[in-house]
Amino acid sequence: MIERVKVAVVGVGNNTSALVQGLALYRQSGSLVGIRRPTIDGLGVGDIDVVAAFATSEEKVGRDLTEAIFLAPNNFPRLDCDLPRAGVPVTKGLVDASEVRRVAAALAGAEVLLYSAPSGRPETAQAYAEAAHTAGVAFINTTSDPVARHPRWIDRFEAAGLPLLGDDLASQFGTSVLHNALLRLLQERGLTLVSSYQVNLGGTEDFRNLVENPNTKKQSKLNALSDADSVEVAPLGYLPHLASQKVAHLNLEAQGWGETAVSLDVKLKVHDPSGAAGVNIDLIRIAASALRNGRGGHAAEATSLFKSPPGTAI
Amino acid sequence: MIERVKVAVVGVGNNTSALVQGLALYRQSGSLVGIRRPTIDGLGVGDIDVVAAFATSEEKVGRDLTEAIFLAPNNFPRLDCDLPRAGVPVTKGLVDASEVRRVAAALAGAEVLLYSAPSGRPETAQAYAEAAHTAGVAFINTTSDPVARHPRWIDRFEAAGLPLLGDDLASQFGTSVLHNALLRLLQERGLTLVSSYQVNLGGTEDFRNLVENPNTKKQSKLNALSDADSVEVAPLGYLPHLASQKVAHLNLEAQGWGETAVSLDVKLKVHDPSGAAGVNIDLIRIAASALRNGRGGHAAEATSLFKSPPGTAI
Amino acid sequence: MIERVKVAVVGVGNNTSALVQGLALYRQSGSLVGIRRPTIDGLGVGDIDVVAAFATSEEKVGRDLTEAIFLAPNNFPRLDCDLPRAGVPVTKGLVDASEVRRVAAALAGAEVLLYSAPSGRPETAQAYAEAAHTAGVAFINTTSDPVARHPRWIDRFEAAGLPLLGDDLASQFGTSVLHNALLRLLQERGLTLVSSYQVNLGGTEDFRNLVENPNTKKQSKLNALSDADSVEVAPLGYLPHLASQKVAHLNLEAQGWGETAVSLDVKLKVHDPSGAAGVNIDLIRIAASALRNGRGGHAAEATSLFKSPPGTAI
Amino acid sequence: MIERVKVAVVGVGNNTSALVQGLALYRQSGSLVGIRRPTIDGLGVGDIDVVAAFATSEEKVGRDLTEAIFLAPNNFPRLDCDLPRAGVPVTKGLVDASEVRRVAAALAGAEVLLYSAPSGRPETAQAYAEAAHTAGVAFINTTSDPVARHPRWIDRFEAAGLPLLGDDLASQFGTSVLHNALLRLLQERGLTLVSSYQVNLGGTEDFRNLVENPNTKKQSKLNALSDADSVEVAPLGYLPHLASQKVAHLNLEAQGWGETAVSLDVKLKVHDPSGAAGVNIDLIRIAASALRNGRGGHAAEATSLFKSPPGTAI
Repeated sequence: MIERVKVAVVGVGNNTSALVQGLALYRQSGSLVGIRRPTIDGLGVGDIDVVAAFATSEEKVGRDLTEAIFLAPNNFPRLDCDLPRAGVPVTKGLVDASEVRRVAAALAGAEVLLYSAPSGRPETAQAYAEAAHTAGVAFINTTSDPVARHPRWIDRFEAAGLPLLGDDLASQFGTSVLHNALLRLLQERGLTLVSSYQVNLGGTEDFRNLVENPNTKKQSKLNALSDADSVEVAPLGYLPHLASQKVAHLNLEAQGWGETAVSLDVKLKVHDPSGAAGVNIDLIRIAASALRNGRGGHAAEATSLFKSPPGTAI
Repeated sequence: MIERVKVAVVGVGNNTSALVQGLALYRQSGSLVGIRRPTIDGLGVGDIDVVAAFATSEEKVGRDLTEAIFLAPNNFPRLDCDLPRAGVPVTKGLVDASEVRRVAAALAGAEVLLYSAPSGRPETAQAYAEAAHTAGVAFINTTSDPVARHPRWIDRFEAAGLPLLGDDLASQFGTSVLHNALLRLLQERGLTLVSSYQVNLGGTEDFRNLVENPNTKKQSKLNALSDADSVEVAPLGYLPHLASQKVAHLNLEAQGWGETAVSLDVKLKVHDPSGAAGVNIDLIRIAASALRNGRGGHAAEATSLFKSPPGTAI
Repeated sequence: MIERVKVAVVGVGNNTSALVQGLALYRQSGSLVGIRRPTIDGLGVGDIDVVAAFATSEEKVGRDLTEAIFLAPNNFPRLDCDLPRAGVPVTKGLVDASEVRRVAAALAGAEVLLYSAPSGRPETAQAYAEAAHTAGVAFINTTSDPVARHPRWIDRFEAAGLPLLGDDLASQFGTSVLHNALLRLLQERGLTLVSSYQVNLGGTEDFRNLVENPNTKKQSKLNALSDADSVEVAPLGYLPHLASQKVAHLNLEAQGWGETAVSLDVKLKVHDPSGAAGVNIDLIRIAASALRNGRGGHAAEATSLFKSPPGTAI
Repeated sequence: MIERVKVAVVGVGNNTSALVQGLALYRQSGSLVGIRRPTIDGLGVGDIDVVAAFATSEEKVGRDLTEAIFLAPNNFPRLDCDLPRAGVPVTKGLVDASEVRRVAAALAGAEVLLYSAPSGRPETAQAYAEAAHTAGVAFINTTSDPVARHPRWIDRFEAAGLPLLGDDLASQFGTSVLHNALLRLLQERGLTLVSSYQVNLGGTEDFRNLVENPNTKKQSKLNALSDADSVEVAPLGYLPHLASQKVAHLNLEAQGWGETAVSLDVKLKVHDPSGAAGVNIDLIRIAASALRNGRGGHAAEATSLFKSPPGTAI
């Protein structure tokens, strides 16, 4: 029997809620619904234990992880499964680099540190990477803050035989994936794109933050599209009632033979945190497997799971 | 300067209207909008002349091809280009096999015979193939009637150094192409399909015929889908006001991580005859190129352009 | 405290399932969600008891009503409420007119008979009306079979001081209601309709029956539309996975000032049996109130709840 | 034969383009497509002449009105009709109140002044009202700047026997009209609204201005909805390729009987300037008719054509 992976997570938001609940659900049901890779190097979906969690919210610190994931502003739904107490109280996250040692100590016993906090605080991301390095733990950076894009960090982790995966997780399924697939399909079939737009609506705290800082995200959305010149991205809409569900409206207007019109209208509904957890489950197993096999630094098989893997401009 | 391909067409319906008008449009504009392959073995989109056309409708026979394509029940729109008289009067099509010689004689000067009549009359399709063989002309069967699926026919054409391409043209862009791309995308991303449906609405004569014989088409639509078990195809709807435009509504319900719902609703609008002409333009050039290079029988590069290429069960 | 209405129902299909479960749900929750009229003549939504039920299916007869409503082919979902045993075993329904007396006897204690069987058996509908008349019970005909449209039947019930409501229940909310509202809105705003279509998809046994007999329903759908000339109704699609959910796609193309295009695309999802039960709850209370107040025959306030009220051609 | 109405317009934007082109189209075609009221007090749609036009853009001033309406940033499409030169050169609009007399002089011969400039400059709106009053001309304020809401202005115009219609034109057909109609329909049928959203996308200069000042418009959109508490309005999206076309995505989630889900998704496409011109054509005729009949001040029949008619809070 394979030894379960011991993971620590930074951030007890919706993505962590989706991960923790999903682990319970799949362990109980044995189901493989929504799973991209049933096993990675022998590790199944249920072969993961969360052994530590860090958060900055006063309300979450000290609570059992299985309670903390339901506290506001989290709004990922309660999945239809039992959720036995984790016995993992949420630890106070680090506020500045002076706390690296404390965090490293708290990582004792963990093999992988999954950094799943909100984007936008590169010093914090790097302080956790430092702590992971100190503790001899693999590090996964799901945020857009640059860590794995820095050759310096990759080199340090590689030298230590520790995997470093990042940056900026690419969702299992979301607007960019869908929009790109449709743009590619039109191109592949020889249609000529005339115009295209994308509207994204959501109700999470992440969404609210992005709405308040719209240009960054809009640009990043455009970068994510293969035919950015002809695509317009409307401002994000923060609609609280959607909770963790994201709704996107896509339109593609094209021309086929004889310059006749081809038109596509799409509505997508998806839970963003599920899209993150569905990739995190693979990243954790890739990191654990690399660690156990003594492969430090970047893991090539993780490249396609990130928007800004090593090699991307910082 | 390359020599233009001389094509004869059987059937003066919407698909031929789209082909003939499109040839004029592209020649005048030099545009490549909606074109999948700008050149095939040096042959551009405009390098094609229609030199003969066969039809059974009394009203079309004897009229110039550029007039006949606008006669009822044709309802493909008039494209925004000049359409100079072709100087090609529509010839009476064959009714039974006794007329093969007459047709073969009428093919003098043609290099390719494009069989673009309605599906459902295999004897007629094969009689035209016979005429093409007699006249030393390449044959393209765009209907679902079996010709190129018969090894016997392939062998005969191959022996004569004549290309034989078929059967059952796969549209440049239509419901099946789109539905399959979406089903594949979900699978590729690890989502689990729960249910899916497809509704097709159209206003052409072809559509009306299919509606009166729905089971055949429904089954064929299902066969065309990669995940047929979970997909339901609603009855075709013949809505005259749509004319040559096809409208399709697609729905895909799936599950991602944690068995959370992912839902996709799509509306597609496209002109079916453009989808056919956009592939015929490639088939004609493939056939002409093969003929000119002395390659008879099946042409491998045409395989993906047919739903039932050689090798498919009859 | 008002005396509860005692209702007998004919037909133990999805509509009866929605009615029976809804009665339990509203009684428990006190909620008024989805309720058009909280009280009718003092009668609340929960003030109704089903005291008898008739069905022809061997499997349903003899079972408690609260079990029978979940038997195949019923597929209305289980609502989120407790459903205490009704203590009402399903009675064998009548097969021919010779059984009117047996049914009348079984109606002892009931005030209202709700006829909620499938449409298409006028003799059966009228035999149940006869039984209601014999037993001194109000009669509601929700099917399209003519009962209340017959002046003879209205006169007989009126003479006996018994309410007779019918025919052909108009759903609380469905495709016709929505399509008509949109057509009226365009007209009211001075837009000119160019074309419109409607596609209906569903998964109930009713839907399956309609699909097998499409012309009737299509015509009836058209009759239900205020601007039938410009509206096209596509064939019904029976998609089993939809279960009791109906999905409709509507399109309206119009022109405004300067003949510029206005276009509307709508997707509706709704549970048909809820649409029926939401009206039945009002009909039952109208019938009971009229009966208790000695008003026999047609009740004017029920007119708008039927597609073919008295006065409609038979 | 009725005497044609002589109208002066302030603002030579898309709305004026739609008005001027539409007048030509209807006069030529005699069509009534998209017309709400064929005649008002004997005045047909074609019985209107634009005799003066004011604009501030250097490029438009001095050009014939029929040329100026096609200059950037205008992007309302060229309608399919002849547009004979108007012989009306665009006059320099007023910049401050000192120019009231010049404008009043330029109004000689006009009966109605249609104020159709961008909203947001109340002093300008009132200066034009002053000029109209001086010149003895009826005034229509289509902007949200307060004029007709001021009892003082109404009184002055009434005393002078001059009609004053305003404020803030309600489009013939747009997102608010549609959303409200759907909200009302659900309510009328007894459904309970759970949530609703609205996304508006457009490509006009007006839209661009609104996007840069989003809160105002969002609030105004909410005010325009009958059930504002449950409706969320996403940020406007300025998508240049849409030009004068507006696209709106609406969603309504509700509950019917048994608290079962009812869901409505709508896509609307409409030309905003047509929606304005289709109402301006009525306002002009109402104003002219009132003026000719000596009825000054507010005209009751115009009340429903404005979002903020007299009596609304300023």
